[in-house]
Amino acid sequence: MKAYKDMSRDELLTLKAALEEEYKEEAAKGLKLNMARGKPGASQLALAMPMLDVVNSTSDMKTFLGNDTRNYGDLDGIGEARKLMADMMGVEKDNVVVCGNSSLNIMYDTVSRSMNFGVNGSTPWCKLDQVKFLCPVPGYDRHFKITEVFGIEMIPIPMDDHGPDMDLVENYVNNDPAVKGIWCVPKYSNPTGISYSDEVVLRFANLHPAAEDFRIYWDNAYCIHHLYEDQQDEILNILTECEKAGNPDMVYIFASTSKISFPGSGISAIASSLNNIDFVLKQMTVQTIGHDKINQLRHVRFFKDIDGLKAHMKKHGELLRPKFEAVLNTLDQELSGLEIGSWIKPRGGYFISFNAMPGCAKAIVAKCKDLGVVLTGAGATYPYGKDPEDSNIRIAPSFPTPEEMEMASKIFVLCVKLVSIDKLLEQ
Amino acid sequence: MKAYKDMSRDELLTLKAALEEEYKEEAAKGLKLNMARGKPGASQLALAMPMLDVVNSTSDMKTFLGNDTRNYGDLDGIGEARKLMADMMGVEKDNVVVCGNSSLNIMYDTVSRSMNFGVNGSTPWCKLDQVKFLCPVPGYDRHFKITEVFGIEMIPIPMDDHGPDMDLVENYVNNDPAVKGIWCVPKYSNPTGISYSDEVVLRFANLHPAAEDFRIYWDNAYCIHHLYEDQQDEILNILTECEKAGNPDMVYIFASTSKISFPGSGISAIASSLNNIDFVLKQMTVQTIGHDKINQLRHVRFFKDIDGLKAHMKKHGELLRPKFEAVLNTLDQELSGLEIGSWIKPRGGYFISFNAMPGCAKAIVAKCKDLGVVLTGAGATYPYGKDPEDSNIRIAPSFPTPEEMEMASKIFVLCVKLVSIDKLLEQ
Repeated sequence: MKAYKDMSRDELLTLKAALEEEYKEEAAKGLKLNMARGKPGASQLALAMPMLDVVNSTSDMKTFLGNDTRNYGDLDGIGEARKLMADMMGVEKDNVVVCGNSSLNIMYDTVSRSMNFGVNGSTPWCKLDQVKFLCPVPGYDRHFKITEVFGIEMIPIPMDDHGPDMDLVENYVNNDPAVKGIWCVPKYSNPTGISYSDEVVLRFANLHPAAEDFRIYWDNAYCIHHLYEDQQDEILNILTECEKAGNPDMVYIFASTSKISFPGSGISAIASSLNNIDFVLKQMTVQTIGHDKINQLRHVRFFKDIDGLKAHMKKHGELLRPKFEAVLNTLDQELSGLEIGSWIKPRGGYFISFNAMPGCAKAIVAKCKDLGVVLTGAGATYPYGKDPEDSNIRIAPSFPTPEEMEMASKIFVLCVKLVSIDKLLEQ
Repeated sequence: MKAYKDMSRDELLTLKAALEEEYKEEAAKGLKLNMARGKPGASQLALAMPMLDVVNSTSDMKTFLGNDTRNYGDLDGIGEARKLMADMMGVEKDNVVVCGNSSLNIMYDTVSRSMNFGVNGSTPWCKLDQVKFLCPVPGYDRHFKITEVFGIEMIPIPMDDHGPDMDLVENYVNNDPAVKGIWCVPKYSNPTGISYSDEVVLRFANLHPAAEDFRIYWDNAYCIHHLYEDQQDEILNILTECEKAGNPDMVYIFASTSKISFPGSGISAIASSLNNIDFVLKQMTVQTIGHDKINQLRHVRFFKDIDGLKAHMKKHGELLRPKFEAVLNTLDQELSGLEIGSWIKPRGGYFISFNAMPGCAKAIVAKCKDLGVVLTGAGATYPYGKDPEDSNIRIAPSFPTPEEMEMASKIFVLCVKLVSIDKLLEQ
């Protein structure tokens, strides 16, 4: 394939005319496909349906300690759910609090509490002139939205194939006391799909923060969300590494079963040092009497243990793999060599991150929409929704069927080509 | 019966000696009873067990609008759950957002958001020198704890049989712009058991707050929690009355099914003007992608409608009535005429409020504890846990069995007598 940039104006115009014919054909199909959000597909949800039977009117509703899950109590979660989530997060049970249905909500609350009450006794952030968070980019829009609404200044940190640019991270964290946090999706990162290398994790653990209340917000959303049996990313255990490095309190880990059982009806957890957990619980006890323990019991009775979780996620991987491959194959076949976009093949998680030619992302997303294919808004993967290069597009292949993903991918590459040609013709 | 205060020193000492014999007998029994918190009893929880069957692996998981309750979406709750909670709260469906498992959590979040973001565009409270809340006393300790942790100054407002002292309320709210809220449990009040009179509700609705961001925090926790079929309190609809009075945005109403289905596994809701709900949702969308919709569906499928809720609560009333009566009968039989305590007979809710002679509450609670009967800590019903009279004790009869409540009540009146005699002998 000849790279578009090496084509003459005439070549480009000829190609454009042909692509516009294709465009008309696609438009006539009147498709309606949504690749905007990381929503599990119907076949994935079906996998968890038997979970709705394991706790029923004849069930023993007591925890192994004898507490009635139907009544108030167990603010930190029932023991067996703490154990399950601990095993999933690679930490000890005592380091875990199991919460409600949303890890995003725990993250929001963690930031919110820091605003109002500080971190383990530090000055409440709302009393400070400036609070800053580092935001690896492209990243997760809902992380950025939390820091945005609290008026926290967001500093983009470029990501490469190994994680965030750690020279930059160290420079900010170790020198600027206004830097209070960094958002991380360390495994099968949202949206780039890469996992942090051991060196990156170790450099995180060995930071020397200028702010005592600096914390790493380690959203391990896709910790067991592999696409392949034989190619699974593993990352170093950040809590252990922080302890070793003399920074035991420096990290909050978040996870949930939203993309394991049911989005919106899963269970979520925070893991951290005992010191941090103690502080979190002291605040949480004012906020609520406790979380939904029957749902915690339901999860434990269904998955039983970490092996049950992994076996279940193997099935998810099998359902997701063809959808990812439909996109990746189309990108490979249609765009390789054209030099109008780049992407990484992820081994897990929920997204494929596509980098278009600078200045093309918004136009591509708009063109796809015209053809009935909804993508995450261009820019969403950057703080304040502003991608300075207008280049990154997040593709979420999970919700449509594999067949739909194939149709959607064809439309996507068609739009990439058309917008890229227009961009080159402008120059 | 002769009032203790009219007894001679010798009479009191003779009585004390007899009571101390009784005390020894009770101590020998080694009882262990908990009347500390408004926890439903096992028989109440059993009523909701069939709810665990109505959503199972063979169920249609779609809402009547066709949304899949198993996936992300419906931030404001599924339509049918909004309708159910709206009917329970006496408002329209569009005025309701159904949230997670805890109305306390909604209240906390509402205060927390006001601290960080203000109320519908007002200055965030964390930027103000002073924020005050009015706290009808005796009241609910967990309300007071929320305002306490946020550093909000709490002003106690005495309660009488009709509600809070409205002269005081009007004086504070209409003149002091630092007064931003008032905590209310308007029906079967926690702990006094009284319901606000129509005049009180109307005076609330017709306040002229000095602060534009003043709100009434109307915790209608016991809205359908009647003890009797033929004697049910009804209160005026505060949202309607506020609208009529030209104060449409002045109230937030909170409720949950914690004491209808399962504490910790119920559903909760906030109701308010469309204006307020819009603001709440704009903030909530940053906090979470949505609440547990499967549990909402479970509630709707089980209760069906407001009539189903009411029928269910009739059964609760039947189970709770003997427990309340065990306490009330014992108080009547053992303390009438002694002038060492007063109480109100509630027609619903979860509590009996007992006012001991000033300076006696802490000692009574401690003495009960020595005999194995745990009560809510004395003072808990006042801001900062400080009852200036050391008089009020909250009795929660729901958790023990009626037989246990009878035993516990006997111990309670015994301790009231002993402590009162000691107090009189001191004088």
